[in-house]
Amino acid sequence: MSVRLDEIVARLGGDLAGDGSLRVSRIATLDTAGSDDLSFLANPRYRARLAATRAAAVIVGPEAAQDCPVAAIVTPQPYLYFARVAQWLYPRLRPPAGIHPSAVVEASVPATASIGPHVRIGPGTVIGDGVVVEANCSIGAGCRIGASSWLHAGVSVYADCSIGARAIIHSGAVIGADGFGFARDSDGSWVKIPQTGRVVIGDDVEIGANTTIDRGALEDTVIEDGVKLDNQIQVGHNVHIGAHTAMAGCVGIAGSARIGSRCTVGGAAVILGHLTIADDVNISAGTLVAKSITEVGTYTGMVPFLEHGEWRKNFSRLRHLDALADKIRALETRLAELEKKS
Amino acid sequence: MSVRLDEIVARLGGDLAGDGSLRVSRIATLDTAGSDDLSFLANPRYRARLAATRAAAVIVGPEAAQDCPVAAIVTPQPYLYFARVAQWLYPRLRPPAGIHPSAVVEASVPATASIGPHVRIGPGTVIGDGVVVEANCSIGAGCRIGASSWLHAGVSVYADCSIGARAIIHSGAVIGADGFGFARDSDGSWVKIPQTGRVVIGDDVEIGANTTIDRGALEDTVIEDGVKLDNQIQVGHNVHIGAHTAMAGCVGIAGSARIGSRCTVGGAAVILGHLTIADDVNISAGTLVAKSITEVGTYTGMVPFLEHGEWRKNFSRLRHLDALADKIRALETRLAELEKKS
Amino acid sequence: MSVRLDEIVARLGGDLAGDGSLRVSRIATLDTAGSDDLSFLANPRYRARLAATRAAAVIVGPEAAQDCPVAAIVTPQPYLYFARVAQWLYPRLRPPAGIHPSAVVEASVPATASIGPHVRIGPGTVIGDGVVVEANCSIGAGCRIGASSWLHAGVSVYADCSIGARAIIHSGAVIGADGFGFARDSDGSWVKIPQTGRVVIGDDVEIGANTTIDRGALEDTVIEDGVKLDNQIQVGHNVHIGAHTAMAGCVGIAGSARIGSRCTVGGAAVILGHLTIADDVNISAGTLVAKSITEVGTYTGMVPFLEHGEWRKNFSRLRHLDALADKIRALETRLAELEKKS
Repeated sequence: MSVRLDEIVARLGGDLAGDGSLRVSRIATLDTAGSDDLSFLANPRYRARLAATRAAAVIVGPEAAQDCPVAAIVTPQPYLYFARVAQWLYPRLRPPAGIHPSAVVEASVPATASIGPHVRIGPGTVIGDGVVVEANCSIGAGCRIGASSWLHAGVSVYADCSIGARAIIHSGAVIGADGFGFARDSDGSWVKIPQTGRVVIGDDVEIGANTTIDRGALEDTVIEDGVKLDNQIQVGHNVHIGAHTAMAGCVGIAGSARIGSRCTVGGAAVILGHLTIADDVNISAGTLVAKSITEVGTYTGMVPFLEHGEWRKNFSRLRHLDALADKIRALETRLAELEKKS
Repeated sequence: MSVRLDEIVARLGGDLAGDGSLRVSRIATLDTAGSDDLSFLANPRYRARLAATRAAAVIVGPEAAQDCPVAAIVTPQPYLYFARVAQWLYPRLRPPAGIHPSAVVEASVPATASIGPHVRIGPGTVIGDGVVVEANCSIGAGCRIGASSWLHAGVSVYADCSIGARAIIHSGAVIGADGFGFARDSDGSWVKIPQTGRVVIGDDVEIGANTTIDRGALEDTVIEDGVKLDNQIQVGHNVHIGAHTAMAGCVGIAGSARIGSRCTVGGAAVILGHLTIADDVNISAGTLVAKSITEVGTYTGMVPFLEHGEWRKNFSRLRHLDALADKIRALETRLAELEKKS
Repeated sequence: MSVRLDEIVARLGGDLAGDGSLRVSRIATLDTAGSDDLSFLANPRYRARLAATRAAAVIVGPEAAQDCPVAAIVTPQPYLYFARVAQWLYPRLRPPAGIHPSAVVEASVPATASIGPHVRIGPGTVIGDGVVVEANCSIGAGCRIGASSWLHAGVSVYADCSIGARAIIHSGAVIGADGFGFARDSDGSWVKIPQTGRVVIGDDVEIGANTTIDRGALEDTVIEDGVKLDNQIQVGHNVHIGAHTAMAGCVGIAGSARIGSRCTVGGAAVILGHLTIADDVNISAGTLVAKSITEVGTYTGMVPFLEHGEWRKNFSRLRHLDALADKIRALETRLAELEKKS
């Protein structure tokens, strides 16, 4: 597939500088693009690379347009524009509709859905139009999978969970396993608390490979519209994640945390349970959030690293920080005494 | 299903205050409970919510009984009592016994077990009475799965592993993969060490979704009775976890660590290899345990988070803590000198 | 199977001290070995245990040979030697070749390969000689799996990925899921960027259970020859890992990080995106790498843990480190002033 630059601008907007009849068929970085390729300059730091590009055309912001040695599509948000062109040039090819004969389907499935080999779908589950369920997925009873959602191979969805439209769920994700809830008996053993809530996921949500979202204990775990979760994220029971919040890989969220809308959470951050994070908050990678955040802003708790010997010397002091602070206070007192005398 | 309050007390103990003929059919929180619901007050902080509850009855401790505006079941451990009633009201519904025709079973399976679609069970494996193996599970040869254990969809168990009675293993868990063992050759390449041990799991263990427990290198990895592991936990080879220890999500345990009984480990904590943790130790979330712990207690290494600018200002000092300590010492010396003179 | 000591030395080298006709059939630790067992002393710390061993023979370094009370195989690298003998004594038993009738295979598979129950392999995929694909694996279209590679049960490989020869991939691993790439629209919602690259894995790579390796955004994610990845590791899109690098469990690597050859990365370390790590670098467990490392060495950012009360007292000072440093500077100024006067 190839498209003309003037077709792109007609559909997606932006200003064209150069020959609109040029055709592009792929997207590539400035360094690697060839004469069939559309490239983009999203990060101003790479502006110097424009000069040497061999791309047919480049998507650029207005401030860089004059530096572009080839045809340009000028738009205030080049990266967003690139995403839209890329979706056009690289459409996801849905497998043919139909139910593979090896699938064990106890639910009613519309003719437009594609159910792969070795899938199991339990009774009472409702599958939307155009849904794709790839090989070896297991969907329990009483679930709802919204129209055009796509479950990659090996996804497990427990009974009674609800997933909205246009979801993309990657392999190994587990939706609706029991939350971690136990009461402790006098002898130290644990008595399981049945997890009777569900997982309820809105529209346009993407869930990464091997990410786990537990069902609620008494109420539901809720993932609102447009949330994007990367791989290997753990979402505990009763968590609520607001619309359009995005989280990078390996994040852990303990039970009953309530996270606002449009937040971003960096990789391997940890959010403890029963706390609240406001809308539009950014959490840096590796940060452990141990109390609620009520103000918009960026919050960080990353630990610097050092060459090992340097680390040992400096970080061992952490165990004595309080004593160091006491010494400073004592010095201040003694010095003030001397100053009085002098 | 609904039960009378006096039936509950007859079976589970506690003192009934109010009309024993009242029936409840669900459990709900104080805020959401309606007239068919039994609620509970487990955390004294929520005592003020008792007044407004619309529950039919509430499970309370003796100290809060007088504040309960509706029928009460009074017991010293309301949360534990709640867990027991919940198990009664929400029994897990086992799928019907029998082997799905699509399952590939080379082991002998008792008539009381339920083996789901697309399951594979290898030769020589012994499946106990009443075991449930859901869709797409793979169980290797020579394993033992104890009576009444339940493997949710998509669990993998490697050959020769042993799981006790009444286990609950959630989707995506992997039991018995090779431990991470290599010897380094002179050119920097790695030579694999065959992992010839097993995983041996006791009775009444619960294992969360996508948790991985590696088989031992020469000896076995051992999980004792009553251990509860949340999702996405990694247990390295030769680890030993004592009875009734519970770990929250995303914990990592390196090889040959030996963890005591009745410990609790908070989410995303990391326990390094070849160390020992005593019984009844609590590790806080996010804590990295780099040396053995021999005394009962709670141990913590969480890093506080700050607004990003504040973080940068303060945490950059961590790289110079040792120099700061030196400056304090120098100040003390100089000040002592001056004090002598004055 | 049992082998004579002189057979071992004939094949693997080393010097034999003792009766070469002795036979061993298993490997065991110094403490547990019996009269059929070969043991080894890899860590000089355990040298005292030699005296009491009941092993038939022990693999030792030259410095410990004189202390060995039984037959000895003397070699400069006892641990490496142990690995080689263990591979001999414990060969991995490949399942019989052939395609299980329940597998859905649209690719051409050589007669020497073993394809297990409920496997799905997409069209255009090329399976090498002697490959093992265990139950419930899903391999997309257009992939390449090199000769003698072994995929354990429940592995997912997305379309167009390439895996070299002799790979070992453990259960639940996901190769080639979409990288986490989105452009943000003005209303805070996210527009997906198609992930059009592949995952390209070299020869002799081992990938742990539930590890995820995302496909590239525009270019490829590359894992070079001999890389060893433990369980639950997350590798983001466009990452490049150099040959013979080894990573312990729970490591997270953000997109476009470039990691050198022969590095070691400790458990639960985090490597942020778009940075470079030189060859032969060691990263300690729990360390967050937030900037590039250009020099060979060991780098650490582990946080010490303390008894909880001690932790609270000391770590709370971290929020005020900058103020402490300011106080020290002020003290120095005031003290210099006094010293001038005296």
